[in-house]
Amino acid sequence: MIRPFEYTHGELRILDQRRLPFEESWLRCTRAADVAQAIKTLAVRGAPAIGIAAAFGLALEAARGRAALEEASEILVGARPTAVNLSWAVERCMAVAREAPDECLVETLESEARAIWDEEIAANESMAEHGSKLFLPGRSYCVLTHCNAGALATGGIGTALGVIKRLFEQGKLERAYVDETRPLLQGARITAYELKQACVPCTLVTDSMAGWLMGQGRVDAVIVGADRIAANHDTANKIGSYSLAVLAHAHGIPFYVAAPLSTFDKDTPCGAMITIEERDPGEIRFIGGMPVAPEVDAFNPAFDVVPSRLITAIITEAGIIRPRW
Amino acid sequence: MIRPFEYTHGELRILDQRRLPFEESWLRCTRAADVAQAIKTLAVRGAPAIGIAAAFGLALEAARGRAALEEASEILVGARPTAVNLSWAVERCMAVAREAPDECLVETLESEARAIWDEEIAANESMAEHGSKLFLPGRSYCVLTHCNAGALATGGIGTALGVIKRLFEQGKLERAYVDETRPLLQGARITAYELKQACVPCTLVTDSMAGWLMGQGRVDAVIVGADRIAANHDTANKIGSYSLAVLAHAHGIPFYVAAPLSTFDKDTPCGAMITIEERDPGEIRFIGGMPVAPEVDAFNPAFDVVPSRLITAIITEAGIIRPRW
Repeated sequence: MIRPFEYTHGELRILDQRRLPFEESWLRCTRAADVAQAIKTLAVRGAPAIGIAAAFGLALEAARGRAALEEASEILVGARPTAVNLSWAVERCMAVAREAPDECLVETLESEARAIWDEEIAANESMAEHGSKLFLPGRSYCVLTHCNAGALATGGIGTALGVIKRLFEQGKLERAYVDETRPLLQGARITAYELKQACVPCTLVTDSMAGWLMGQGRVDAVIVGADRIAANHDTANKIGSYSLAVLAHAHGIPFYVAAPLSTFDKDTPCGAMITIEERDPGEIRFIGGMPVAPEVDAFNPAFDVVPSRLITAIITEAGIIRPRW
Repeated sequence: MIRPFEYTHGELRILDQRRLPFEESWLRCTRAADVAQAIKTLAVRGAPAIGIAAAFGLALEAARGRAALEEASEILVGARPTAVNLSWAVERCMAVAREAPDECLVETLESEARAIWDEEIAANESMAEHGSKLFLPGRSYCVLTHCNAGALATGGIGTALGVIKRLFEQGKLERAYVDETRPLLQGARITAYELKQACVPCTLVTDSMAGWLMGQGRVDAVIVGADRIAANHDTANKIGSYSLAVLAHAHGIPFYVAAPLSTFDKDTPCGAMITIEERDPGEIRFIGGMPVAPEVDAFNPAFDVVPSRLITAIITEAGIIRPRW
């Protein structure tokens, strides 16, 4: 299975996801700032994956002492604003670091980062198990997903894609429809590639086609990942998720979010309080470096928020949550 | 104002819209088959524009006699299946040709094609006038549009874009949001360019952002063009229109269709009877020749159908139609 990074003592190698699936290029990170840069530029992306990467970023910095570590934690948390897993992982590691003796700082942080990764892998398996039970045996479902909530976003089998792969293994999946997910095409470049590798039948569509597929009765459920789930279960996820949730609701189709408990942010009361990252309009004006509308004003929010009333269920490693409204 | 084609006796020059806005390249057509090829490959697109182009295509063939003309009419009508303006224009010209003496065939068809074009120009003006009255004076509106229903789609000031330009002239437009319109990016390449040329304030977004803009209260109305309007007012238009209509309905935002009477097809009782063109999946797998997901299965319907119950009003040159349900 593809993995988003590899760690050996003193070095985190990050698979540059911006170049996938055409080039397998690895970035060598030896400082926390390198990792922060890889997160900011989306070389590594996906809420759980950037949490794990940030944890390794701290391990890289630990040999330089506690002051360097504090500084690194700020740089890492500031790399992207929306996914809570980033600050969650950094805070968890910093709490452990504070308890550790100086001479064990590196080992402690390396071991904590590995623990976070291992837990995400196990959580993915659990989510796949819980999520697949939302689908009846003996039936075959068409499921639509958006962006990439798979191996490269999590370090495990994936959140939304973990469920989809498990449905396929259980013979309950007819087809996965994959939104290409403009502007950065994570659906086309990463999800379609990952499902094809896993021999899961999948069909790529433009984001604008999802509603029409639903209207034609070709979608039985929508499953997406999450970047931050507020206390009231409003959920930030890749831009386009809100449209999908409204469309699914209008068609009576269940809308599922698959996310580990590390994505839940009890300190944010509701979706309106979640900071939505606005990225460079150049991501819309250009595609893969090629100009499309280079001189036009463009608006580029990276995420949107699905209100909890539009979420049928949240699939976590601890079980299924059904938001109440 | 930019025009999609120029006719001089014996030659139709078609602006190759696939290369816009970066290259102004003109295709020289001297036979109906050349025009059909330009329509099929989307060098010229937009329901009214392909109707006019087809009419000139017949004029090009008229010197070769009536048998050649009959054959040309079939080739032209078969070039694309969804827009009714194509068969409407060809049938209108063929009816006139049947009444014309042999020695006047060329002149008759040239004159009929010019008449169709002139009527579309006048219809655009009328639609802009009627459509702008749907917006109250003294207020400033944000309007979202999809694909390109402008000068290059019609030969006049445009259908949906004609209304938007008129609103701007009347001081009633705050901003036009333009969906980039995957897969062929007519919104980004043509609409944004056309509005910028006309100094209309516009912001480009990916198709997946439209719902989020609506949810944020940033869209007051959606206006799109049409490729075929069935007898019950179900409307085929560029893929993504259905999603926009459902989203607009869910947000209590009016959804307007602007289309000349030549787009109405009284012989098609309802939207389910409209043939939806499926195009090469390569249009999704590649962007501008660049591979994104070259080996993945993809589904590429060029249009979808908005049911009449989701259409607030249809703006025509004869006035406003409010579908009843």
